[in-house]
Amino acid sequence: MKVAIMGYGTIGSGVAKVLDTNKDIIKERIGESLDIKYILDLRDFPGDPHEECFVKDYMEIANDKEVQIVVETMGGVEPAFTFVKAMLEAGKSVTTSNKALVADKGAELMQIADANNTNFVFEAAVGGGIPIIRTITACLTGDVIEEIDAICNGTTNYMLTNMEQFGSDYDEILAEAQALGYAEKDPTADVEGHDSCRKIAILTSLIAGKNVDFNDIPTEGISKISSTDFKYAKAMGKSIKLIARSVKSGDTYSCRVAPYLVTPEQMLYHVSGVMNAVAVKGNMLGESMYYGAGAGALPTASAVVGDMVFLARNVERPVKIGWSDEKLELANPAEQSFKYFVRTSALQSDIENEFGKVEYAGLDLDNEVGFVTEEMTEAEFNERQAALGGIISVIRFF
Amino acid sequence: MKVAIMGYGTIGSGVAKVLDTNKDIIKERIGESLDIKYILDLRDFPGDPHEECFVKDYMEIANDKEVQIVVETMGGVEPAFTFVKAMLEAGKSVTTSNKALVADKGAELMQIADANNTNFVFEAAVGGGIPIIRTITACLTGDVIEEIDAICNGTTNYMLTNMEQFGSDYDEILAEAQALGYAEKDPTADVEGHDSCRKIAILTSLIAGKNVDFNDIPTEGISKISSTDFKYAKAMGKSIKLIARSVKSGDTYSCRVAPYLVTPEQMLYHVSGVMNAVAVKGNMLGESMYYGAGAGALPTASAVVGDMVFLARNVERPVKIGWSDEKLELANPAEQSFKYFVRTSALQSDIENEFGKVEYAGLDLDNEVGFVTEEMTEAEFNERQAALGGIISVIRFF
Repeated sequence: MKVAIMGYGTIGSGVAKVLDTNKDIIKERIGESLDIKYILDLRDFPGDPHEECFVKDYMEIANDKEVQIVVETMGGVEPAFTFVKAMLEAGKSVTTSNKALVADKGAELMQIADANNTNFVFEAAVGGGIPIIRTITACLTGDVIEEIDAICNGTTNYMLTNMEQFGSDYDEILAEAQALGYAEKDPTADVEGHDSCRKIAILTSLIAGKNVDFNDIPTEGISKISSTDFKYAKAMGKSIKLIARSVKSGDTYSCRVAPYLVTPEQMLYHVSGVMNAVAVKGNMLGESMYYGAGAGALPTASAVVGDMVFLARNVERPVKIGWSDEKLELANPAEQSFKYFVRTSALQSDIENEFGKVEYAGLDLDNEVGFVTEEMTEAEFNERQAALGGIISVIRFF
Repeated sequence: MKVAIMGYGTIGSGVAKVLDTNKDIIKERIGESLDIKYILDLRDFPGDPHEECFVKDYMEIANDKEVQIVVETMGGVEPAFTFVKAMLEAGKSVTTSNKALVADKGAELMQIADANNTNFVFEAAVGGGIPIIRTITACLTGDVIEEIDAICNGTTNYMLTNMEQFGSDYDEILAEAQALGYAEKDPTADVEGHDSCRKIAILTSLIAGKNVDFNDIPTEGISKISSTDFKYAKAMGKSIKLIARSVKSGDTYSCRVAPYLVTPEQMLYHVSGVMNAVAVKGNMLGESMYYGAGAGALPTASAVVGDMVFLARNVERPVKIGWSDEKLELANPAEQSFKYFVRTSALQSDIENEFGKVEYAGLDLDNEVGFVTEEMTEAEFNERQAALGGIISVIRFF
């Protein structure tokens, strides 16, 4: 079976490596081999083992009837969308690792695939090596999914783990992560939570069967988290994790990306470094969690190749996963309730005036007080914190 | 779509409950509803919501062409095997939660299903609510699986967690687990590791594509674990977990079920109570772990219903998962290497004579010494421990 790879960066070349390394077992599992016929990239790769496969015009792939499976590992919405659309319209099956594309155009591409009697899949777009997409769409199908809580960004989890372990401050750890290649030069998409936001939008679309606009999800990153926040967390026996959440609320879901305080009794507490995990709660299943490498060339490429095996087993047989383009109106985030950990320069008497009985967080620092509120809605909390003033930081309890 | 349930015990009635509770979303996912037409049970259930469905002769189901999906939740090898075989030969799709049946007759039933152009699936037979079978057969298909480490028995994990937490001894905790219904009257299958052994045999068959005879797997349970063992474990910063392991060794796998000493850096350390987890290492994927309820009526029934949705989507379309009936010769267990924690009444000088440099385990008890060996093969360790004598207990390092 002839395949093509569009985009020969870290993931794309990883896909070639997985196909080469595990050639025999993949052939055994499908019944025939997966042979790379084309690699689309504007750059040249002299001396590459697949040197003879490189092309610069995507239509060369689209027009070759022999190619049945196409991998998109270019990243970004355009030109990836144009290329993927052309492949699906030519009747080819497509898998992508590109979360920007899936979050923005997933529902549309699913419909194009369906109209052309083929498949569009994207296991690698969320959670890298964690097979969470197929788990949700093909395994937990007897359940109403009540909640998803995901640590789904390796960069930020690596940074938070190191801030906790070494007591370092945000800027220091970011510079280190950039030096090690764990964070990009412009780290905004990771550290401000945009990447996690797109991922929880995709997962919520899949469990709801309707389309979530990621712009509707309130998103905070980790750039305001300091070493002092971690000192408080430690004093409370907790850690801080960036969690992308989706909680069933009536007929819809309530979504949010934010740093949360977690306890050792919660499995997500133990997810460290570049590892990721997605906790899923079903109304019959109860709690479950899926843990693995959230990024990295080979784990992500492994997920892409797993998709290729799926596509090879389902040529000309569209497998519906129920993601319509009807928009899902998310629940009002102001109505979500939490307990809040608050640091403020306000006086204790003023805190108790505004928030009533609070728990103090057991660190004795100059010029500030840390306390934990009762559970209340975002709307109520925002009113009270504005009235109190002197707010240094706020982190929700998980 | 008409379905039948064979065996209306805990799991079977759980399946009916999941189908009833999640009727609407299941219909949405399949495109038609799953309606229970028959329930096979020798007992009567007057007043049951499905009272009119009960039958006592399995051939009544086999002969009804309207029934497309049959659930087997009877347990045991016979008559379950005879009934399931008849259903497959009648062209029906079958899902079972019965690990004894799958471990003993899985390869044979897969072939019967294949010959009759239908499917035989068994997600609920291993790991209850953890979708590990489909993860292995339909997700991690780009990888060579190098290792599986499973906490896959809820009863023993509950008992070990409580022994650790309350310092209780084995007999006391067993009695308590029996009183709570977490352990059976005859607890042998759980506490001696036979249940875990069948499960790792099934998982190893799936990753190897050949048939593992569970009788070939060296199996130790937890009945020799004492509160003193846990005192030593605590002194070493470790916990004790019953782990079913399968490690790639050349062209085959090395399997074992035994209690192991695990550290907090290992995710399995954090799997407590009745929860289970299966850690899977792929040659490209790296480490991953799948966590959830290992038993219980509803989580297990949720997995059965997930299988029913899969079967409904694949009627008359056999999905191969590559489990041949060719026997897999496992690696010689005597050649596996471990570090061993040993308690003995022997003298320190004799210990050092036999084992050379050892680490002492830092508990000062009368009449015994606890120490940790260097890594060595089972064969070598067995020779040395026999020569030393006075052995009280041995637990391998994970």
